[in-house]
Amino acid sequence: MTNLIYLDNGATTKPLNSAIEYASVYNTEKFFNASALYSQGLDVHKDLLNAKKTLINAFSSNFDVIFTSCGTESDNTAIFSYLKRGNAVTTMGEHSAVYNAFTTVKNNGYDARFATLNSDGSVDVKSLLSLIDKNTVFVSVVHVNNETGAVNDVNKIARLVKEINPRIVFHSDGVQAFMKIPFKPNEYIDLYSVSAHKINGLKGVGALFKNKKLTTLKPYLIGGGQESGYRSGTENSFGIKVFEFATKFHHENLNLHYNNACELKNAFLKGINSEYFTVISSETSSPYIVCLSANGLRGEVLQHMLEKEGVIIGTGSACSSKNRHSRMLESIGYSDLVLDGVIRISFSFETTLSDVEILVKLLNEKVSKLKLTMKV
Amino acid sequence: MTNLIYLDNGATTKPLNSAIEYASVYNTEKFFNASALYSQGLDVHKDLLNAKKTLINAFSSNFDVIFTSCGTESDNTAIFSYLKRGNAVTTMGEHSAVYNAFTTVKNNGYDARFATLNSDGSVDVKSLLSLIDKNTVFVSVVHVNNETGAVNDVNKIARLVKEINPRIVFHSDGVQAFMKIPFKPNEYIDLYSVSAHKINGLKGVGALFKNKKLTTLKPYLIGGGQESGYRSGTENSFGIKVFEFATKFHHENLNLHYNNACELKNAFLKGINSEYFTVISSETSSPYIVCLSANGLRGEVLQHMLEKEGVIIGTGSACSSKNRHSRMLESIGYSDLVLDGVIRISFSFETTLSDVEILVKLLNEKVSKLKLTMKV
Repeated sequence: MTNLIYLDNGATTKPLNSAIEYASVYNTEKFFNASALYSQGLDVHKDLLNAKKTLINAFSSNFDVIFTSCGTESDNTAIFSYLKRGNAVTTMGEHSAVYNAFTTVKNNGYDARFATLNSDGSVDVKSLLSLIDKNTVFVSVVHVNNETGAVNDVNKIARLVKEINPRIVFHSDGVQAFMKIPFKPNEYIDLYSVSAHKINGLKGVGALFKNKKLTTLKPYLIGGGQESGYRSGTENSFGIKVFEFATKFHHENLNLHYNNACELKNAFLKGINSEYFTVISSETSSPYIVCLSANGLRGEVLQHMLEKEGVIIGTGSACSSKNRHSRMLESIGYSDLVLDGVIRISFSFETTLSDVEILVKLLNEKVSKLKLTMKV
Repeated sequence: MTNLIYLDNGATTKPLNSAIEYASVYNTEKFFNASALYSQGLDVHKDLLNAKKTLINAFSSNFDVIFTSCGTESDNTAIFSYLKRGNAVTTMGEHSAVYNAFTTVKNNGYDARFATLNSDGSVDVKSLLSLIDKNTVFVSVVHVNNETGAVNDVNKIARLVKEINPRIVFHSDGVQAFMKIPFKPNEYIDLYSVSAHKINGLKGVGALFKNKKLTTLKPYLIGGGQESGYRSGTENSFGIKVFEFATKFHHENLNLHYNNACELKNAFLKGINSEYFTVISSETSSPYIVCLSANGLRGEVLQHMLEKEGVIIGTGSACSSKNRHSRMLESIGYSDLVLDGVIRISFSFETTLSDVEILVKLLNEKVSKLKLTMKV
């Protein structure tokens, strides 16, 4: 296990030991309920406010932050707060937490609209804008596509959306972008979802950034009124403080890690045998995610072959990995030959060039071998 | 801090070190996404199935378990799945996660009904049954009241409810009951909410037990389809495994801990000066919670005086502690004199008789002193 090369960081990342150490006091001496009114509770509450400050500092001072239990809850909170009247627009390239929330209300008769994608998984902005009208109340566009890494210019898209209808609430799922790619939200972004476990925090913690100007968001979890009434449930102080640490770490090292990821992506793309693979990710995609297809082979076969050699890769998002094909890539119109062979390589800040070299060598070898076998 | 006597275990409990140690591997060597299809992911998935088995073993083999992020989410999942047509009935004695969910839909025009309470905070069963009719779709009754410890006989109540209308879905919030008081759900219970951090697990983890017969529950968090489609969001494997450990520990020691709590409650009630205090909890309440009022004084003043002496008590539920009076106790009709003076003592399995003796001595002394001051 120690020599494992883990390249499925889009699915989840290994928590930072230092972050867990930093926050472990919230499971021991500082285990108190952050809503309790004795000094020990107030202390924890204050520590959670500091965690909010760290996240806001890393994102934008024009936003508040609401802690949630995961990216899915952040997305759902944003979406279900607004998809009650008028219509709403999203893209075919969303994570299931957005896509399935939209399809659920659509199946109940709501006018939910889906913009088509470009070949790299980015949204076709013309398609998106054509779906917006004066009755549109909400638009959600993923920042970094979780399968291909395609980066949507959500600042620009939000501005174009609001030029058509300024009353629209604009949300972006930033789970694969936050603390990975350089980004400052502009004034047109209203809501932005993030997740701790994608940046070496813990599973079970997420956040929803809310533009301070936005006053119409409704809580999704209802109860004791924690998180200024926006999210009830006893505050997960331990998980939040781990998230704070991980955010600070990545914020301080964002450019360093980003440049490292760019090198890894370039080395990977240079190294793989272009006869065997169709690269789906574009040059402008997030350097942390490379989506490609070993045309005519099956992605899961390759995945298992590499697993035996101690290299872990993905075959799409972990969430949708039980379906045969990616619904997202299918919607773009890729052939079954390409869809069958899809694999996803996703890097972390700890991935090294040597890891990528081993991956490239293995991929080329295994595919070559499989192709030969098939010709026999 | 080391000599602190913590008696607000109804708000939250200190996580078990042994449980954290047991589960820490899910943040290190086993950090993988439980939905990933390589062997490391499948292993974690299997471990989570074992956690489910442990919870089911401690509760009832007639139920499935859905892991959530907290008791509030468990309650909301149950409630919002059903409060769409007909009417629904709950009690004035619910935790905010149920009560405020009901009031939210009521404010939107839904026919939500609230049964009145007896003086100890238990539901007036006649009142509850009188609210039920052929259009009632859902009934929710808290198992152990979080402020007074009143135990509702939910097995009996569920049976009586279904005698009136067998199509009703019966839910109980068992957050203050689970692994604290002996209980086996009967066939009339459909849904049962629990929370990890009330039994020495972590904040940010809960569960919803679902009767295997129940087929109409809808997911509340929508996305990747984890938890057999009932709860999307990457599985919080670390938190779930801590919960498993805590459940097993409490299940194995339930009677021992229960009898200990009974002794503590009896010693406490015997010890306090009955001239100064109105005891709101009844003899049949959970031994883990004692609610009482230092008539004419203010609960938070007492709380702060005890805090200075290293003894932590509550003034009501942590969630509602920002309101002057408990809405629940107010609904029973207690006078302002009583309501002002409410304090809540809640024990854990680690509380000792010596802790209670110190508490009793301090309470009697401080109240005596305050009473004298007020007479001057």
